[in-house]
Amino acid sequence: MIQSASDRRAELRREITAYARRLTATSGLQGFTVEDLCEHAGISRRTFFNYFPGKEQAVIGEYGDGVDPAAVDAFLDGRADGIKGISPNLLEDLLTLAAAHFAVIGLTPAEAGAFFAAAHREPKLVEQLMRRGEEHHHYMTMLVGTREGLVSEHPVAHMAVTLCDAIVQSGVRQFLSPDNTHTLPEIFQTRLDAAKQIFAAALPN
Amino acid sequence: MIQSASDRRAELRREITAYARRLTATSGLQGFTVEDLCEHAGISRRTFFNYFPGKEQAVIGEYGDGVDPAAVDAFLDGRADGIKGISPNLLEDLLTLAAAHFAVIGLTPAEAGAFFAAAHREPKLVEQLMRRGEEHHHYMTMLVGTREGLVSEHPVAHMAVTLCDAIVQSGVRQFLSPDNTHTLPEIFQTRLDAAKQIFAAALPN
Repeated sequence: MIQSASDRRAELRREITAYARRLTATSGLQGFTVEDLCEHAGISRRTFFNYFPGKEQAVIGEYGDGVDPAAVDAFLDGRADGIKGISPNLLEDLLTLAAAHFAVIGLTPAEAGAFFAAAHREPKLVEQLMRRGEEHHHYMTMLVGTREGLVSEHPVAHMAVTLCDAIVQSGVRQFLSPDNTHTLPEIFQTRLDAAKQIFAAALPN
Repeated sequence: MIQSASDRRAELRREITAYARRLTATSGLQGFTVEDLCEHAGISRRTFFNYFPGKEQAVIGEYGDGVDPAAVDAFLDGRADGIKGISPNLLEDLLTLAAAHFAVIGLTPAEAGAFFAAAHREPKLVEQLMRRGEEHHHYMTMLVGTREGLVSEHPVAHMAVTLCDAIVQSGVRQFLSPDNTHTLPEIFQTRLDAAKQIFAAALPN
């Protein structure tokens, strides 16, 4: 199979992150340099900074704004014409966007385990990941507002992202558990269906 | 005003936690002992361990299972007789229980700020708080299952707690923001209403 340039980029990015996590778990963040990562990957310092803004971001595995542009476009185009009020498929589409994101960054139990091993040695990585999550939340709220025609920071846009995040986070935990046999989209759908049951009972008929 | 024994206990507990957070922020967890906390509070080591299982728990402010027994009873009794399926007021009642919990532990911007200052110095406290959150999640899922007559670890019970947690966490963040003027129950209700709007659009009429 011939790899595309973006596949090769993604593979190298994951390779750098895997190595950075291994070094962090064994030696801590102070125990290695960007140069060590460059040498391992066979790239220059300059190329490294095309991949990650710094050493800690390489360990976390974050890059750019962490969202696939094509998936974002599909999300923004996903509101049917002529709809009044909130799109019926808003949460489905948010979960599809999240699943696309995880497909790009390549979320596997091995990769998650490597991150947790690094974070165990350097707990501040967890703090950083949470801050990163807040930025992502603002970005997503803005996307939902744009698509649904809501004023910025509208409570409904904020809540849609909050509900989606809750399903994603609990779903990812199930996905990464050793006995899981389902795909991430399947897991998200099961959870969304359970949420719909709860709200169906709560809403007046 | 005459303080009850349980008010006095709660006040002393909060005083110990405030001092433990101050010491952690300035000197780290290794920079003080349980004896330092006892001396400050004017209690014996033995009394201390009636309040907290250890130093780190004093900093986190966790005690017992962290839930008010009367509020738990009210939650368990809150399902109306003759209901089939999920209670319409399940999420409301879960949020009421959460609000009661925060009233007991006394969540204020000052107290939260002191915790974050301690956690900034000792990031592993965040990891511990998250683990504590997972235990609490299992306990709450069990409570929901018991009240709603669901088999243990039912997806709906799990999801109800996940949705409630999402509303609580984002609501607490708003509550602790400098410009907030609302009570915690008001904030929870506004968010639940927004969630209902989203699901009302998603559910078939």
